[in-house]
Amino acid sequence: MSHKIVRRIARPDAGVVKILGNAGTATVHEAQGRTGLLRPYLRPIYPTVRIAGPAVTVSSQPGDNLMIHASIEVCQPGDVLVVVTTSESTDGMFGELLGVSCQAHGIAGLIIDAGVRDTAELTGMNFPVFAKAISAQGTVKNTAGDVNIPVVCAGAIINPGDVIVADADGVVVVPRERAAQVAQASEQRLAKEEKTRQRLRSGELGLDFYGLRAKLAELGVEFVDDAGEAESKSARR
Amino acid sequence: MSHKIVRRIARPDAGVVKILGNAGTATVHEAQGRTGLLRPYLRPIYPTVRIAGPAVTVSSQPGDNLMIHASIEVCQPGDVLVVVTTSESTDGMFGELLGVSCQAHGIAGLIIDAGVRDTAELTGMNFPVFAKAISAQGTVKNTAGDVNIPVVCAGAIINPGDVIVADADGVVVVPRERAAQVAQASEQRLAKEEKTRQRLRSGELGLDFYGLRAKLAELGVEFVDDAGEAESKSARR
Amino acid sequence: MSHKIVRRIARPDAGVVKILGNAGTATVHEAQGRTGLLRPYLRPIYPTVRIAGPAVTVSSQPGDNLMIHASIEVCQPGDVLVVVTTSESTDGMFGELLGVSCQAHGIAGLIIDAGVRDTAELTGMNFPVFAKAISAQGTVKNTAGDVNIPVVCAGAIINPGDVIVADADGVVVVPRERAAQVAQASEQRLAKEEKTRQRLRSGELGLDFYGLRAKLAELGVEFVDDAGEAESKSARR
Amino acid sequence: MSHKIVRRIARPDAGVVKILGNAGTATVHEAQGRTGLLRPYLRPIYPTVRIAGPAVTVSSQPGDNLMIHASIEVCQPGDVLVVVTTSESTDGMFGELLGVSCQAHGIAGLIIDAGVRDTAELTGMNFPVFAKAISAQGTVKNTAGDVNIPVVCAGAIINPGDVIVADADGVVVVPRERAAQVAQASEQRLAKEEKTRQRLRSGELGLDFYGLRAKLAELGVEFVDDAGEAESKSARR
Amino acid sequence: MSHKIVRRIARPDAGVVKILGNAGTATVHEAQGRTGLLRPYLRPIYPTVRIAGPAVTVSSQPGDNLMIHASIEVCQPGDVLVVVTTSESTDGMFGELLGVSCQAHGIAGLIIDAGVRDTAELTGMNFPVFAKAISAQGTVKNTAGDVNIPVVCAGAIINPGDVIVADADGVVVVPRERAAQVAQASEQRLAKEEKTRQRLRSGELGLDFYGLRAKLAELGVEFVDDAGEAESKSARR
Amino acid sequence: MSHKIVRRIARPDAGVVKILGNAGTATVHEAQGRTGLLRPYLRPIYPTVRIAGPAVTVSSQPGDNLMIHASIEVCQPGDVLVVVTTSESTDGMFGELLGVSCQAHGIAGLIIDAGVRDTAELTGMNFPVFAKAISAQGTVKNTAGDVNIPVVCAGAIINPGDVIVADADGVVVVPRERAAQVAQASEQRLAKEEKTRQRLRSGELGLDFYGLRAKLAELGVEFVDDAGEAESKSARR
Repeated sequence: MSHKIVRRIARPDAGVVKILGNAGTATVHEAQGRTGLLRPYLRPIYPTVRIAGPAVTVSSQPGDNLMIHASIEVCQPGDVLVVVTTSESTDGMFGELLGVSCQAHGIAGLIIDAGVRDTAELTGMNFPVFAKAISAQGTVKNTAGDVNIPVVCAGAIINPGDVIVADADGVVVVPRERAAQVAQASEQRLAKEEKTRQRLRSGELGLDFYGLRAKLAELGVEFVDDAGEAESKSARR
Repeated sequence: MSHKIVRRIARPDAGVVKILGNAGTATVHEAQGRTGLLRPYLRPIYPTVRIAGPAVTVSSQPGDNLMIHASIEVCQPGDVLVVVTTSESTDGMFGELLGVSCQAHGIAGLIIDAGVRDTAELTGMNFPVFAKAISAQGTVKNTAGDVNIPVVCAGAIINPGDVIVADADGVVVVPRERAAQVAQASEQRLAKEEKTRQRLRSGELGLDFYGLRAKLAELGVEFVDDAGEAESKSARR
Repeated sequence: MSHKIVRRIARPDAGVVKILGNAGTATVHEAQGRTGLLRPYLRPIYPTVRIAGPAVTVSSQPGDNLMIHASIEVCQPGDVLVVVTTSESTDGMFGELLGVSCQAHGIAGLIIDAGVRDTAELTGMNFPVFAKAISAQGTVKNTAGDVNIPVVCAGAIINPGDVIVADADGVVVVPRERAAQVAQASEQRLAKEEKTRQRLRSGELGLDFYGLRAKLAELGVEFVDDAGEAESKSARR
Repeated sequence: MSHKIVRRIARPDAGVVKILGNAGTATVHEAQGRTGLLRPYLRPIYPTVRIAGPAVTVSSQPGDNLMIHASIEVCQPGDVLVVVTTSESTDGMFGELLGVSCQAHGIAGLIIDAGVRDTAELTGMNFPVFAKAISAQGTVKNTAGDVNIPVVCAGAIINPGDVIVADADGVVVVPRERAAQVAQASEQRLAKEEKTRQRLRSGELGLDFYGLRAKLAELGVEFVDDAGEAESKSARR
Repeated sequence: MSHKIVRRIARPDAGVVKILGNAGTATVHEAQGRTGLLRPYLRPIYPTVRIAGPAVTVSSQPGDNLMIHASIEVCQPGDVLVVVTTSESTDGMFGELLGVSCQAHGIAGLIIDAGVRDTAELTGMNFPVFAKAISAQGTVKNTAGDVNIPVVCAGAIINPGDVIVADADGVVVVPRERAAQVAQASEQRLAKEEKTRQRLRSGELGLDFYGLRAKLAELGVEFVDDAGEAESKSARR
Repeated sequence: MSHKIVRRIARPDAGVVKILGNAGTATVHEAQGRTGLLRPYLRPIYPTVRIAGPAVTVSSQPGDNLMIHASIEVCQPGDVLVVVTTSESTDGMFGELLGVSCQAHGIAGLIIDAGVRDTAELTGMNFPVFAKAISAQGTVKNTAGDVNIPVVCAGAIINPGDVIVADADGVVVVPRERAAQVAQASEQRLAKEEKTRQRLRSGELGLDFYGLRAKLAELGVEFVDDAGEAESKSARR
């Protein structure tokens, strides 16, 4: 089984990436039909983190960060590193020194389905990281892996060049080919939500303007004045 | 099996709710005999969150927020929404738009044994939420459920109108009928703790004024000068 | 089986403790050959926590904090309490009152492989705590245990008097006998890292100056221009 | 806060209990409107376990089995012990000796939201147990608790005298007042399922006789011949 | 976002599937370069389960089994159903009646990244199931999903028509295009292992015939006669 | 940091090992004062597994089984391999071939705080294994580790030569120096339990002959005839 580092990947349009980043994870996830969300165990190391950029993917042996070093060479400014391990691990495979190297090469941030360390320093440097764990556990540099192959990260398929959008609510991936379409749908969704927001703020009920009263009736959900009434109705049946 | 939305519930006295909220979860939990605490996996979305209010309960299908919409109509200002699912889920069933709607109706906060999203926006709005997970995962509005029935939330029984008290240490429920008595016991406990605090601050040992030296002796726990002494005593037996 | 509280333990040199504390967990863990790290589920109750000091160890029945009270008497200023339970528990065995008592006796902080409560108050007092859970669950004072015996805390062996170092990345233990040697190795490591940092900041690749290109070649990892090239090479074999 | 052991509880009709036991958990859970199921982490210690009987409930301090001893006195033949702890625990609170005592008093089995030990011996005795964990961890007899109060066990409310039904699929509770009605509904459901079984065995599709083709159409789910067709249809829009 | 049921998928060669099934998961996983293993939380409902067959994939809303019903129509004899949910769930989405229907259509077994129920009946029928949980929790039939799209199941990418191999050690997926090559590599591996087995059985050490003594020396691992010797060597440095 | 393989360790008396093995984990754990139990997540791969023998300890990089190979050379017939990793892992580091090698050298069984594979074959060979996970995930042979150093395995300290006792209830470790004393205490305990068993079988209550009625009274636990009586008593206070 040979391992490889792919140098050239197709990247999405920068304007599209910017729109998706501004829309945020919840909107983008809805705009692409409730798909592409990574498992919620990935959490930012500081709460104001926001990232959007093309994925450079890394597949590593657990407890071994050789391939992360290898990946930096093939990154371009604005890329987001996406690191997975071949089996589950919480080791701190990435720390401040790798963060310094990433920033020197303009890398926008890191999504890692494993652990991170030096979180105080990375926060101080303003280098965005989403990780499964915070752990000082050190790693070795002994085992082959791959850069820029399709990976599964926290339950989602990520291909090199796909758009990663991440904020306080988590991480979502948008396939590169669909990015423009999803960006457009996200903008439409945001416009629609603004109208909804105003109606809700004025006290209107979602129950009314989403048409949910009919849905409740169809499902046989009854409004009753008190618990006793429900019981007595039920008893009469 | 019919489903229902109960409009009218008995609510606790507002003054009692206020006392319980000021006392905080640890004190209230002790004051009612170490009962009523929800499992510690429920965490606030921002650390300064504090809530106290009567529960309006919601039972939903996982991944479906239809019944949350239905519940807002029956809430009164100051109420706390308590949302559970019929099986475990981390989906983000509640977000900023529902938060806007809740605030428009004076709802004090949300306890959800599932996920929440738009946490940056909800924090910005100062809408208190305790949740099991932060997840952008969207939900549908397809399946019947109930409002204002007894529920189990994070391991505790909650009846509509029970008092919910929540702060940085978690969430505790006080049955409505016992709320006044627990509020009184909480105040007594706080007064007593203030005295204890002063003695401890002055350097007195809990070991002394709680009478624990006698307890240790009764249990056969010995003070020894060093580990070797313990071994040699033990060997002589 | 007798239980005991050992009054006198050997403590490490204060200067060594200070060096280890300044070096931080990631450096210290590496400097002692990637050993001594506690499991990453122990987390600080506020992010700026830093502790370094000799361990006073406590072994308790789950849900029972009698032995924590007993331990304070044998602590000296600068000590770090290390509390474990005989089986797993998340109960809030330590709260603000015990924190006040600890501060009155100069105790530097708490590592607890169980729960903590009154986290807002402990944060306000600036009392450092690393815990497995935040839980208001109260505890009893009924059951014998031990103070200053060897314990396993979050997966690591801790002997009384060992040095505990804890910061945002977690908790590491350094055996007392090795503390001076590890402190020295930590300082050497920090000096070396500073040089590495400068090279990385200037854009040099770790791939180059760590000699990893040779390693990749030895492991058979190939650089390819694009995914297609890799496939066609593979097909030719 | 006083603690109590309630001697007398109302029990369900024995014939009803038998019907529910024969129907099994999946059927009974459906027959009462998909309610009453305990969390699936409760597992039988041997696969052929089946229990049905009235609940005698026990609330204990974690790691303390005093109240289990107290509960046996108030049991009647056929009862099922339901043991919960005031916070989470996996300690082996019940073993072979308690099993011998239970069998001497005709107790039908044990549901424990904690640990069990002596599982080989209990299996050999054919004493049914559903537990959260298997653990040899011993327990003390130091702390007050309650017998025959309402409890939450593995996420479900259980009142003394409610019917417990347990088999290889888990544990379900039926409120005593509803037991007869649920037993009847269970029998109807079993009869209906037998007809469904025959149709499915003959090769008919659930898609057809449950009327799901219409549902799929209503939801906009399309049958396509191959993935390419779906793409091209989608592109034309 | 439209949903679809794809009727026609490419399937692997039956002879290749048979070879892979005989080789078993550990061998197949190694033979394709240590890839394709699903997370180990998927477990068989009875220990002698073995499956090999082409995947028909199903993506469902959690707690909703509408799409499983829809999938049976497009299966062919020997296929393996692979069911995932759009967010995590342990609900018992599949039971005996669906098992009867599957067997009527010659379906070889089920891999489900969620729960299963009626496990006693399914075991009695000899219908193989690998699941994340056993749960009697019933499901609804309300929400759209997809059949025969690429899915992520327990951390692995599965395309329709890929080969599923499952036995007591877990589940592995082999991409359809690589199946013949992996089958060949599996057979070579089995032949080689048989030789290794004979040498190990005769008492030869893997240390010797894998050439690991040289590796240990290169890594600086020393054989010492006793722990003291190691200490004294270390002290001399 | 040097790594080492220690060839010679002190082993416990064979007769003592046999007594401890016959007594079983629950009895041995109690006989040494409720200490030495490993976390209950370690489970046997087949239910009738029983092991007792001296520990040969192995510390490995996660996902790397080089040191297991190295350890076999220093084992003697009857030894039990105890394998831990430097951070958490579920990889299948041990399989049938290593099992064959172990049996060829008379090794009694394996305790591994990680994963195992080829479980069907290992069961067929009757080679006892307790593991954290069953996983076909393969491992590499790249990284240094240690044999016969003190380790923490599933939360317990294990020194080379300590006695491992394992059965259906889990795994317990007895320090070598205490083994004879614990064996004696275990035999006394078994004799005492036999008397208790007979009394319980005859229907006597533990409540009576353990003296627990007095304990309940001391703790203020009251027997009441029904729930109403408790309420009315409580109300009168």
